[in-house]
Amino acid sequence: MFSGAQLSLYPMTDDFVGVILSALGALDPYRPQFRIETDDLSTLVVGPPELLFPAMRDLFVAAASGGVHCVLSATVSRGCPGSPDDDICTPLSGIGADRPLEDRMRDARSTVAAAETTGQAVAAQFSLYPLGADGHMDEIWGCIDFLKSSGVFDREKNFCTKLRGDAGPVFATLSEAFLRFGAPEGHVALDMTVSANSPTPVA
Amino acid sequence: MFSGAQLSLYPMTDDFVGVILSALGALDPYRPQFRIETDDLSTLVVGPPELLFPAMRDLFVAAASGGVHCVLSATVSRGCPGSPDDDICTPLSGIGADRPLEDRMRDARSTVAAAETTGQAVAAQFSLYPLGADGHMDEIWGCIDFLKSSGVFDREKNFCTKLRGDAGPVFATLSEAFLRFGAPEGHVALDMTVSANSPTPVA
Repeated sequence: MFSGAQLSLYPMTDDFVGVILSALGALDPYRPQFRIETDDLSTLVVGPPELLFPAMRDLFVAAASGGVHCVLSATVSRGCPGSPDDDICTPLSGIGADRPLEDRMRDARSTVAAAETTGQAVAAQFSLYPLGADGHMDEIWGCIDFLKSSGVFDREKNFCTKLRGDAGPVFATLSEAFLRFGAPEGHVALDMTVSANSPTPVA
Repeated sequence: MFSGAQLSLYPMTDDFVGVILSALGALDPYRPQFRIETDDLSTLVVGPPELLFPAMRDLFVAAASGGVHCVLSATVSRGCPGSPDDDICTPLSGIGADRPLEDRMRDARSTVAAAETTGQAVAAQFSLYPLGADGHMDEIWGCIDFLKSSGVFDREKNFCTKLRGDAGPVFATLSEAFLRFGAPEGHVALDMTVSANSPTPVA
């Protein structure tokens, strides 16, 4: 299976280059297990699916820690038929996406409940796309049920679900949605936006 | 059919609020045909599918015209089973997504060739998700063939396709990909990133 993310970091400041460069060190612990490539639009990280969201969490918390309004936007994918298998992407342990939907919802809740907090408040929204499968809406509804009991559920919006809370459980929730819903060896994509320090009042 | 977009504009400047507010006027001509709602993460526009990309083009060109590095990120959707039909979304004319793949590729190319230029250079990348359908990769490969002959194709990347050129044909290409590929009444989502004035050298 091939898994990875195209991610972009947007600090809303004249010094956006400085903020991005100083946050990149947060990826250092992950570099031995990732292939990383950057161009003018995004950074590709390819590696084990369980490490994608922890890496993005650490990068984003580092960028937001200075108080600047920052957004992380990413397209995350596993099992894309257009990409070759890659040993670097082998899951560290069984993802468990082949178990009954109810079991997966319970495991996802447990993982989020155990997530460490970071001290960084964030808002996030994301869409999950289980591709090439009948019954894709069953997986989406099951995932939404999990989200509603995740402790960081904010609201349903058109085309996406919104989360709010500490970056620790929020990124854990995004990771669980990505890992546990959709066919185990299927093609699953997730697009997400995470924001911190926005001056817009919370509705 | 329900169609719309969750869009966000990210100007990389201390004055990001000013840039966003001054660009919003570009949406005025579209307001009579759209429902528009904003929160701290994104702006929802709901309306006819053919007008979504022209509206985003005009908004983005207005924001980028001052020379600031700006990014527009959006999740665009049509036919989402979770959303009710809405008269405001009725296509202005037949989308033509029920015609053979070869015909749709040709029509898409013609539309892009006729797109007016704006004078604003952009880079973009996007992913197309035809959901709940067998053969979703056939539609994706057909769309990629169209993209390669669109005149604004830059390269294939993992999980997405990159475009480069004037905002006119680039947004027209994104619109054609969204309107003409995937089942006519099916659930199709597209996630996209458009960037202007990046200081990162073009590879």
